[in-house]
Amino acid sequence: MSSPLMLYYCPGHMSFAPHVILNEIGLPFERRCLSIKSGDTAQAEFRAVNPKGKVPVLKTAEGILTESSAILMYLALRYPGEHLLPDAAVGQAQVVEWLNWLSSMLPASIALRLHPYRFTDEQSAWAGIQARGQAECESFYQMVEQKLQHKTWAVSERFTVVDPMLMIFYRWGDLLGLDMSAFPCWQRHTENMRKRPAVLKTLATEEITI
Amino acid sequence: MSSPLMLYYCPGHMSFAPHVILNEIGLPFERRCLSIKSGDTAQAEFRAVNPKGKVPVLKTAEGILTESSAILMYLALRYPGEHLLPDAAVGQAQVVEWLNWLSSMLPASIALRLHPYRFTDEQSAWAGIQARGQAECESFYQMVEQKLQHKTWAVSERFTVVDPMLMIFYRWGDLLGLDMSAFPCWQRHTENMRKRPAVLKTLATEEITI
Ligand SMILES: N[C@@H](CCC(=O)N[C@@H](CS)C(=O)NCC(=O)O)C(=O)O
Ligand SMILES: N[C@@H](CCC(=O)N[C@@H](CS)C(=O)NCC(=O)O)C(=O)O
Repeated sequence: MSSPLMLYYCPGHMSFAPHVILNEIGLPFERRCLSIKSGDTAQAEFRAVNPKGKVPVLKTAEGILTESSAILMYLALRYPGEHLLPDAAVGQAQVVEWLNWLSSMLPASIALRLHPYRFTDEQSAWAGIQARGQAECESFYQMVEQKLQHKTWAVSERFTVVDPMLMIFYRWGDLLGLDMSAFPCWQRHTENMRKRPAVLKTLATEEITI
Repeated sequence: MSSPLMLYYCPGHMSFAPHVILNEIGLPFERRCLSIKSGDTAQAEFRAVNPKGKVPVLKTAEGILTESSAILMYLALRYPGEHLLPDAAVGQAQVVEWLNWLSSMLPASIALRLHPYRFTDEQSAWAGIQARGQAECESFYQMVEQKLQHKTWAVSERFTVVDPMLMIFYRWGDLLGLDMSAFPCWQRHTENMRKRPAVLKTLATEEITI
């Protein structure tokens, strides 16, 4: 049986969040695993699906969606019975606020730290760019910790589509060499995530640990 | 009479889009005009409202919202009678896709072009960073033009909260030295925008022309 939903993902990357949510919803869906390292996202075949060359991408019966925020909002709005959003407009807007911020500002700083060559060909400038990126990442991670204070989930009493996105950036903190024990609220959040069957299933499929 | 809605904006910046939408809705709202150039967004008073130090910010009776995407989605969801979103989940997700992309990737490339000192202290690297930013901007502008082909409005037959965000980036194209006549679909879109009374009112208040 073929499902109308197909997720393009790369293990341990931003596609982790929609992957978790598809497992939370529990409908059948197909998966296409790409390796960014091996250049799969640069291939013409994938660029035909997403000209921006980025994962996640979700194929739906109603068209192709790119951008994590859009895919997560789609799943939440399309399957309202799963209660993956707060009920009020302001809570839903806070979900968009978190998603937009996490999926844009944070990757921009991470790119400075990990991919300085994207910003200039001049090798002599790379170390300075990386240092700037590291400082920005640290201040973003502190801002997330601040926002998680006194909270079980990111936005409301309820688990929402923001929470799995936080979990993947927790993992990236480790990869950036940040001492994640300095972020106790975020650490607790990740522990709560690890109690969810859909999260465990996604970690197993992507063969990663967080 | 005081309104619960207050917009923090800087003329000609990304706050233009929520400013237009507030005028479209036609409810009373308050405005706080900031000058980024004069350093208003770096002041402690504003940082207390938005620690990220960016406009737009919308104060609502239900709390403070940052990020253009979140503010625009809030207004659309909170005032459903204005029909500022498509009806279907997939259309609403496409709105988030556009908003997220426009409000994150494009400003990142513009920053390379206009503010290379944000990326490194090494002055010798700035010209290279700026050239990279200019190339990225050009390819983004072409992608927007592509997406606007055969369309009156960005997402559906209907004007949505995406459209005023497109208009402000049209203006930024001029500021980036792009030849905007190379983008005829986007030009036509801007002309359609200029027919809307709410747009004319916002241009007048912000004392800008687009
Ligand atoms: N704004 C996009 C960013 C997605 C993104 O940066 N994806 C990265 C992996 S985390 C990617 O696909 N990179 C592939 C490449 O650059 O070739 C989103 O939120 O989906
Ligand atoms: N992701 C934010 C970006 C907002 C943004 O970059 N705002 C700029 C003006 S267009 C700003 O406030 N800059 C002030 C500063 O950097 O001091 C959003 O979509 O609202």
